[in-house]
Amino acid sequence: MTGNESEAALQRRSKNRRSGTAPVSQRKTNYRQLRNPFPVMSVFSDDEAVNMHETALRMLEELGMKVLLPEAVQIYRAAGARVEGDMVYLGREIVQAALASAPRSIHCRGGNAERDIVLELGALAFQPGAGAPHATDLKRGRRPGSARDYEEYTRIGHHFDVFQMMSPSVEPQDVPVHLRHYFTTLTQLDLTDKLPFLFARGTPQTRDNFEMLKIARGLDDDMFQAGVYAFTIINTNSPRTLDIPMAQGLIDFARQGQLSIVTPFTLMGAMAPITVAGAITLSHAECLAAITLAQLTRPGAPVCYGTFTSNVDMKSGAPAFGTPEHFQASLAAGQMARLLGLPWRSAAGSAANLNDVQAANENQLGLWGCLLSGATIIIHSAGWLEGGLSVSYEKIVTDVEVLNMVAELCAGRKAGVNEIGFANALAHVAPSGHFFSAPQTMERYSTEFYEPIVHDYANFGTWTERGGKDATIRATDVWEAILASPRKSAISSDRLDALRAFIDKRTMEGGAPPES
Amino acid sequence: MTGNESEAALQRRSKNRRSGTAPVSQRKTNYRQLRNPFPVMSVFSDDEAVNMHETALRMLEELGMKVLLPEAVQIYRAAGARVEGDMVYLGREIVQAALASAPRSIHCRGGNAERDIVLELGALAFQPGAGAPHATDLKRGRRPGSARDYEEYTRIGHHFDVFQMMSPSVEPQDVPVHLRHYFTTLTQLDLTDKLPFLFARGTPQTRDNFEMLKIARGLDDDMFQAGVYAFTIINTNSPRTLDIPMAQGLIDFARQGQLSIVTPFTLMGAMAPITVAGAITLSHAECLAAITLAQLTRPGAPVCYGTFTSNVDMKSGAPAFGTPEHFQASLAAGQMARLLGLPWRSAAGSAANLNDVQAANENQLGLWGCLLSGATIIIHSAGWLEGGLSVSYEKIVTDVEVLNMVAELCAGRKAGVNEIGFANALAHVAPSGHFFSAPQTMERYSTEFYEPIVHDYANFGTWTERGGKDATIRATDVWEAILASPRKSAISSDRLDALRAFIDKRTMEGGAPPES
Repeated sequence: MTGNESEAALQRRSKNRRSGTAPVSQRKTNYRQLRNPFPVMSVFSDDEAVNMHETALRMLEELGMKVLLPEAVQIYRAAGARVEGDMVYLGREIVQAALASAPRSIHCRGGNAERDIVLELGALAFQPGAGAPHATDLKRGRRPGSARDYEEYTRIGHHFDVFQMMSPSVEPQDVPVHLRHYFTTLTQLDLTDKLPFLFARGTPQTRDNFEMLKIARGLDDDMFQAGVYAFTIINTNSPRTLDIPMAQGLIDFARQGQLSIVTPFTLMGAMAPITVAGAITLSHAECLAAITLAQLTRPGAPVCYGTFTSNVDMKSGAPAFGTPEHFQASLAAGQMARLLGLPWRSAAGSAANLNDVQAANENQLGLWGCLLSGATIIIHSAGWLEGGLSVSYEKIVTDVEVLNMVAELCAGRKAGVNEIGFANALAHVAPSGHFFSAPQTMERYSTEFYEPIVHDYANFGTWTERGGKDATIRATDVWEAILASPRKSAISSDRLDALRAFIDKRTMEGGAPPES
Repeated sequence: MTGNESEAALQRRSKNRRSGTAPVSQRKTNYRQLRNPFPVMSVFSDDEAVNMHETALRMLEELGMKVLLPEAVQIYRAAGARVEGDMVYLGREIVQAALASAPRSIHCRGGNAERDIVLELGALAFQPGAGAPHATDLKRGRRPGSARDYEEYTRIGHHFDVFQMMSPSVEPQDVPVHLRHYFTTLTQLDLTDKLPFLFARGTPQTRDNFEMLKIARGLDDDMFQAGVYAFTIINTNSPRTLDIPMAQGLIDFARQGQLSIVTPFTLMGAMAPITVAGAITLSHAECLAAITLAQLTRPGAPVCYGTFTSNVDMKSGAPAFGTPEHFQASLAAGQMARLLGLPWRSAAGSAANLNDVQAANENQLGLWGCLLSGATIIIHSAGWLEGGLSVSYEKIVTDVEVLNMVAELCAGRKAGVNEIGFANALAHVAPSGHFFSAPQTMERYSTEFYEPIVHDYANFGTWTERGGKDATIRATDVWEAILASPRKSAISSDRLDALRAFIDKRTMEGGAPPES
């Protein structure tokens, strides 16, 4: 486990070899459990938000959800829903009862207690960009995601404390699909003690994943079901469809007391209405249906509300991110989540094709939408390009710089007598003087300011002499240093051996292909 | 006068020639008078903020300000201040009386009523990056600022409606200093109808500037003094020094009823205490002293509170911008401004040496600090590099993309029956269908979404085929198109001739060198 501060210091030290003996920052801010310090913003009036919620309930009653898994249809029917074929019509009393049983606060357990996080309104957690079929970096270019990329991405994601949770990361396309979950779950359990993400691609894979998690954490069935040790992401097929693996995931995770984060992925003007209000109403209805299934399966099952709604470019139909509409959709989703009182997930992201100024600006604008909407979890907070078709190693690093700064803002500042410093600073310096040697400065110079991991404050001349590298090029040095550091396992060799034995056995038995 | 929407459409059209017949956005959002829609954030408790204010008052009483202009010392003395040489000690009752007479709302008049802006808490105005000795762009590289750069920068700044005010721009170093103010004032009055910035580099220049403004706007002395037609920026020499041209500027602008924006420029750990609390307390004290001078000169004179406080890199002493400390300093300054109830100015900015990801992230982080601190005016909101040592033409464009998006957020969204769209969208589309042809989509597709000026949503393949240009390279096309459009004067040829005649006369008389 490496804190990013220590690695930043390493980076800085190697840089300082060229420039002399500059001091190393001693600042240590805990990034592992954050509270959101930003004021919450609404885009709609409270009445409008209530109307959206009422419309979503009406949709579930009158328009219905298409549910492709017979077991899920049966669960809904048993609770009193009207069913016609694969169409499920949910009365509002069923939804409201389910919402009442969903927990408001979810304690999630990492590989050790320092990695535990509590998900509730007011908390804040970041995940790296996720779900990409491709990986890209300046050294090797853009390529289909591989096992190597998955492992590297896991190590980089683990390295930065500002990611409190893992994510679906990059798809290891060179691992056969019936064995892929063994690889992705093993890699996370081996290389990080943060809360792992488990794919929900059908019951057989989920069963394997849970067995591996119990081995890695040393848990029996009762202990496992009593705590949240992993999470998955449940995407509906918008509009109004819940497919087989996603319905199975909801049921499987709920039965075992593990966390489902429900996230309709809706693009305004494509699979959702063109308006923010319409798109979030649709997304909200789908969320309610999914949360209801989890609660009907096991009342009190840990679920997060979620949304990922942005717009399409109406000229090309291409997805856009980091737009005003994306920002407002986050605000609207936050209003709906607060109506329910549930922890919830939102997303930043970028549509840019490389880690350029557009990529930075989109990601940060999307991030501020999430922060001001009071999102509990922000996925795709770093590294995401091409609307999720690739993750960039350099972009992870440059986005982490922003996330670290946000984490520093979470820590706040004081303005006590010593900080205002009438005696030890203000009265100490004559007009037109400087504060370099004021007592207050001497006490604080090594801890007062955040030290960047990739931003460079050298002046133009010095920067030019050092090669005139832009931030993306400098970011390459940062991720290469992370991957060059010794590979460390987060679990004991005994448990690692047991995991490998489990995988060997299951591989001999034929593995488990994803459901569809 | 060109709205940025129409120019964006031009850009888009030329792009669409390659790709077919995509529709042009009809969206028109008024960017000219904005209200800040973001919730206000505090970094300190209310008690802490009051303690900082009290400490600033104590500083002015006990530590004093060094005031280099005898006339200013005399004004302070006449109001009851204790004077020792050039040190002025201001009792709090003098300051408090001055604050009581400062206006809470300032109506500023542009070249026509559509360009008028009202500066007060809750309003929002942007200025381009300013005060740079160098200009840079990808076509011509980094160079000392010239008359040509000043004119080009003025045209680019005028072009984008999201800049409601002009700024000190780039320094035309090839124009002799005793004639430079003629050039900068003429160029603004000729090329834009937005509120002009006038340098306050001594009384003789200010007198010339005011004469030119009266000619351009067709005003006699009484009309001029009755309205705000221009602004200047007053920087103190931190710590605690008010120099001759700045004191003259405060007095001259107050006497003529024109706007002074008081802005101590303080770097934490250099010319200000290392703490946010200490630095803002110092900046606040200096602001109070300057505002007091303006109010003593003419009670009710239009003044804005202001700050520009960031930190230095404690290893190199270099200024840093877009840091957590910069962000928090903006929040703290906002708390002080709200204590006073005055409109106020804050600043974004970047320390990066080129328009890269660092530059984008720093500028946007700084921008959010300003937006969440409730700043009335945000200077250096676009284009600023190297901590203000250069302005980048490409960075103006890429930052304007962010500002435009913020302006779109200012416009809000509705969630009425038509926007939620149960009938015309949600009930219209079957499960797993799409909304491309829903009635709601057809009604709104050309106006619902912001259309970017430089962001590109093409997929990787298309983007690669089109040359794989990053956002900075694409931004070059945007500013080149602006400069290639016909040069238009914002005033009549009669007034332009009168201005030129005035300048010729004053040039013959020897011009007016700056005071120092």
